[in-house]
Amino acid sequence: MSANRNVADMAQARASSSVDAAKLQVFLWGEREWEARQRVESVLAKDPLFEKSSRSFLTRSQMYYRALAMTNRLHELQEIHRWSPEEVNIAFKLVDEPLPIALHMAAFEPVIRTQGSPELKQKYSELIAQRGILGCYLQTELGHGTNVASLETTATYIPETHEFEIHSPTLTSSKWWIGALGKTATHGVVQARLILPPGKDVGPHLFLVQLRSLDDHKVLPGITIGDIGPKAMGGYSAVDNGYASFDHVRIPREQMLSGFASVTPDGQYVQPPHAKLSYGGMLYIRSSMVSSGGWTIARGATIAIRYATVRRQGNKGPDGLERQVITYPSVYYRLLPILSHAYVFILLGRNLTKAFGEMTSRLTSGDTSLLAEMHATTSGLKVLISTTAIQDLETARRSMGGHGFSDFAGVGRLYADYVPAATYEGDNFVLDQQVVRAALKAFDALVVKKTRSVNELTPSTLYLRHLATSSSPPSSSLNWNKPENVIALLERRAAAMVQERAQDLRDPDASADQRVSRAVTEAFVAAQVGEIIKSLEETVASKEATVLRKLYNLHLLVAAEGGLVDILSFGLLGPSASGGDPTRELRLAIKRHCEELLPEAIGLSDGFGFTDWELDSALGVYDGNVYENLWKRAQSEPLNTSEVTEGYERYIKPMLERGQRRIARAKL
Amino acid sequence: MSANRNVADMAQARASSSVDAAKLQVFLWGEREWEARQRVESVLAKDPLFEKSSRSFLTRSQMYYRALAMTNRLHELQEIHRWSPEEVNIAFKLVDEPLPIALHMAAFEPVIRTQGSPELKQKYSELIAQRGILGCYLQTELGHGTNVASLETTATYIPETHEFEIHSPTLTSSKWWIGALGKTATHGVVQARLILPPGKDVGPHLFLVQLRSLDDHKVLPGITIGDIGPKAMGGYSAVDNGYASFDHVRIPREQMLSGFASVTPDGQYVQPPHAKLSYGGMLYIRSSMVSSGGWTIARGATIAIRYATVRRQGNKGPDGLERQVITYPSVYYRLLPILSHAYVFILLGRNLTKAFGEMTSRLTSGDTSLLAEMHATTSGLKVLISTTAIQDLETARRSMGGHGFSDFAGVGRLYADYVPAATYEGDNFVLDQQVVRAALKAFDALVVKKTRSVNELTPSTLYLRHLATSSSPPSSSLNWNKPENVIALLERRAAAMVQERAQDLRDPDASADQRVSRAVTEAFVAAQVGEIIKSLEETVASKEATVLRKLYNLHLLVAAEGGLVDILSFGLLGPSASGGDPTRELRLAIKRHCEELLPEAIGLSDGFGFTDWELDSALGVYDGNVYENLWKRAQSEPLNTSEVTEGYERYIKPMLERGQRRIARAKL
Repeated sequence: MSANRNVADMAQARASSSVDAAKLQVFLWGEREWEARQRVESVLAKDPLFEKSSRSFLTRSQMYYRALAMTNRLHELQEIHRWSPEEVNIAFKLVDEPLPIALHMAAFEPVIRTQGSPELKQKYSELIAQRGILGCYLQTELGHGTNVASLETTATYIPETHEFEIHSPTLTSSKWWIGALGKTATHGVVQARLILPPGKDVGPHLFLVQLRSLDDHKVLPGITIGDIGPKAMGGYSAVDNGYASFDHVRIPREQMLSGFASVTPDGQYVQPPHAKLSYGGMLYIRSSMVSSGGWTIARGATIAIRYATVRRQGNKGPDGLERQVITYPSVYYRLLPILSHAYVFILLGRNLTKAFGEMTSRLTSGDTSLLAEMHATTSGLKVLISTTAIQDLETARRSMGGHGFSDFAGVGRLYADYVPAATYEGDNFVLDQQVVRAALKAFDALVVKKTRSVNELTPSTLYLRHLATSSSPPSSSLNWNKPENVIALLERRAAAMVQERAQDLRDPDASADQRVSRAVTEAFVAAQVGEIIKSLEETVASKEATVLRKLYNLHLLVAAEGGLVDILSFGLLGPSASGGDPTRELRLAIKRHCEELLPEAIGLSDGFGFTDWELDSALGVYDGNVYENLWKRAQSEPLNTSEVTEGYERYIKPMLERGQRRIARAKL
Repeated sequence: MSANRNVADMAQARASSSVDAAKLQVFLWGEREWEARQRVESVLAKDPLFEKSSRSFLTRSQMYYRALAMTNRLHELQEIHRWSPEEVNIAFKLVDEPLPIALHMAAFEPVIRTQGSPELKQKYSELIAQRGILGCYLQTELGHGTNVASLETTATYIPETHEFEIHSPTLTSSKWWIGALGKTATHGVVQARLILPPGKDVGPHLFLVQLRSLDDHKVLPGITIGDIGPKAMGGYSAVDNGYASFDHVRIPREQMLSGFASVTPDGQYVQPPHAKLSYGGMLYIRSSMVSSGGWTIARGATIAIRYATVRRQGNKGPDGLERQVITYPSVYYRLLPILSHAYVFILLGRNLTKAFGEMTSRLTSGDTSLLAEMHATTSGLKVLISTTAIQDLETARRSMGGHGFSDFAGVGRLYADYVPAATYEGDNFVLDQQVVRAALKAFDALVVKKTRSVNELTPSTLYLRHLATSSSPPSSSLNWNKPENVIALLERRAAAMVQERAQDLRDPDASADQRVSRAVTEAFVAAQVGEIIKSLEETVASKEATVLRKLYNLHLLVAAEGGLVDILSFGLLGPSASGGDPTRELRLAIKRHCEELLPEAIGLSDGFGFTDWELDSALGVYDGNVYENLWKRAQSEPLNTSEVTEGYERYIKPMLERGQRRIARAKL
């Protein structure tokens, strides 16, 4: 088979798409960001320092140095091109790998901004913004993760000197997993139990601690610091996740982050006005995980769809060619839903960012009314998106058959870097419980205590309104092409599950929280998708709107299929029109949607606007020339530098000679 | 928290298990293998060459050299300790990582043995057995994988010289992914389309080709060979998966593997007696994947269960200690089913090996009657086991929260090495189709054409017998504690699905084959589990039998839960006794089984008999001392060799200075 066949197949697929990729790029990125992105990308893609394909052959130390070099270079480029902070952020997004500096930007800087006292901010904000110091955020300990209340590190106030003494009393109290702590950060915000005289423990609070000298980067006295070693599957390889233990380290009183709670010079505790005011940062990170999860899925989907378009396998058609693998139902049934997830989560994330802005500005004026809603929403979404994205990346990788297991395919790398999302920023199984707790509370107010009316339901609990209306099972089969039907079905399922969960309160089954949390979150997402579909006419041209409507509808159908156990067990599906298996109509609707979307798959994935440099995948190249790319990349493998391996003289030759000797001996 | 707490928790858990680990070890391994294993292990674990924990810090080239060194050393040890071939195999299993030599042992050697002519075997068998030559098996090409019929490499017979000319006509015909080809193998069995004069293509056949000189290991003229580069997530890192292309390479006629088909000196084709006789090797590899999948799950389960036993997190109990995480329903609900999968697949694999032996001895005498059955069984099992094991490893890893993402946890490595099982040896989605085809054929014979009676059903199609009996839905709820009920339910589900698939023949939904294949295979496995349960009284002591019965029953219940969509949509579940959700009883039965098995979890995982050396996991250590192990391992991280990183002078310092400069400038 000629490699040009691949290129012809890709060109053909592109020509037969009815959508305009450029219009979709603006739809997904927004006009302003899309333009800035192209501007910044043209700078980075030319710079050899940002070359991505060499990563396959680097050690962890080399990956770390490369990350530092890129970070330093980005700050140089910022000056050269007079990039705005927004453009710098875009540059970091384009680099698209976990970097130590990310912890400075996403954790250290925001926590000081939101929880530091005015004096502390006055002293440090500019230093932090200009990278005059580099920070990290020390929460997790060797023995404690999600359960912050049990952290062991202490910060004991010494009224005599107006200092706090930071101390790690045990091995398990060592801070562990802290990004950028191992070798990079000069400062850190340490979470420690505040102990006030005469020994009163008032629980975890935050303290700014200098870790390394600004003169020579040596670790300051009393502190032990190191890197915690490599991560599973080579993920996060460039990040120096580190450990630290503190041996009675003193810091001035002013370095407590006392934007909310504080300690008076004589050691009196001043209560925070609202205990939850400090949740903002955590919610910000979780809410930003929605669109980043969407973009991660987008990468996997683009690579897998492009490869499945040019890969041919199976029986030969009348043209003498084997079938393009994307035309197999078992393949498109896997890839098109992934595409729909990406399109949903990207838009959902954008809406969430807006809602987060609204909440923050209210919080500033002491109004915490949106906090609980944001907390419930982001917890559920964090679980749903991370679980979905991990699964989608693996599905994408596996859809590529053998070649998907090559590092050059690029999806394994995405997977390894993405997979900790299920356990960081709140373990998914802990968050599930929080989602269920919020749902039960809303159920209790609406149905049991009747202290809240249907009109007072928030978006995250709106599905509960179905409990207030009569809910006799439908007498005829659903029209699966109408999004409102599928949304209502997903909402009724969530309502029924919460109701059942409330009934089984004292003896839930072992996976109940996980299932209820998922149902509740899927109902919320479905309603949001409904809004997105309604707004399509205004946000995108009509040709694209037609295709996107199908794609968003596919998302709803696939969610319904995933919820079938619940839907069936609550009798929420009417009988099939044909009298047969009522789930078959749903599955055929999915198949029809996929068939109609199939010619648009390349156009829709081009809509993400990824360049070859960004994707860094031999199988996901824009022009489809996958085999030549695989071949070319293999030539750089270090094992290929010599025709005969170093291992020959030392190991292979002795083995062959031993074997031949044995035979000679046997023949004697 | 004291690290000794971990050790105390583990000792306590071990003491409260009612099973005797030693008895389980014999039950799982068989007495003979278990003893041999301990003997061989005591040699390897002492030898520094087989030290495993250093792997975390090695480059791919170093991993490859280490693999060669271990292989060479194993052959030395074989001579020193006069190990039998069985003991050598055990040694390789104990090393437990993908090695180049595995392809010699599992592919090259068997294909010559089963398909070589007597002359070829006479010439090469001893050389191969003694490693006087090292081989590989060249099937997959850059452009073609599972669909062997479309391979492009040619072997053209030249009657004048009695030679074949092996040739790669295109880039895509390059052999690709071939284990041990890149740098190790001296010889290979090449699959190529046989072209007979005057140009007749008789499809793929096998040819033994020397690849490298036995004098200096240089690649022979006309052949281009290299390593294809790193694999995703660092998997298979020590194996030199390679590529090769052939430029009109001549080999003597005798080097065709003509045990079945052959070519006469003047170029006439001699038909194989039975086209399927050559399938044996493939079936052997697939059938061996059943127990190896089970043992892989066993490793993940042992690590995760041990860690969950000593990890404490959450609210404090009356003893002032947080809860052991294994006591959370969301955790044990994930880990105990995994344990049950391991126990099922290990025993199932052993039975399959016996059946395979029976089939092979019949094949030798030309009796192919067992071939179709073995083919259907192994295809379905290969899909079910690889899918399950991949999922179980990721579930185990994720159950460990943040620390599960450390390379030192060891489960990421298991995952990366295991994950290609879904796409090699027959892509799972292709195998699904074969399973469905076999099921439809049996259905057709039994129900439509009525050419076969219920008594003639083979084990792999026995579930179809339910179609011949009246199948009114049960009027009352099932007793989930009786395995026979759950087995019948899973069988009825498979039968109903095959029947529906036959009805929808012309328009199946897009995931139909995957679901039907799974249902059919799960019915087969369930019946096998029923047999295992029945035989427990004879195979193990009664205390262990009681616990194992629960564990095997849990396997059945979890399979039923996984099949609920089908079970509900076919109305196979009677109403719940309480009149509520009928699935709740099943889920509560799962919870009860888990609760009863919880005190046995450590005993059951000790039953696999893994040593710390074998598992090589900081979180899976036998004594539970996980935190000290994590700490100790981190000290070896190369980034920790200097207090101040190399990257400081080059990148961090310039960045800090630039930041401070900017601030100074702003203040002017």
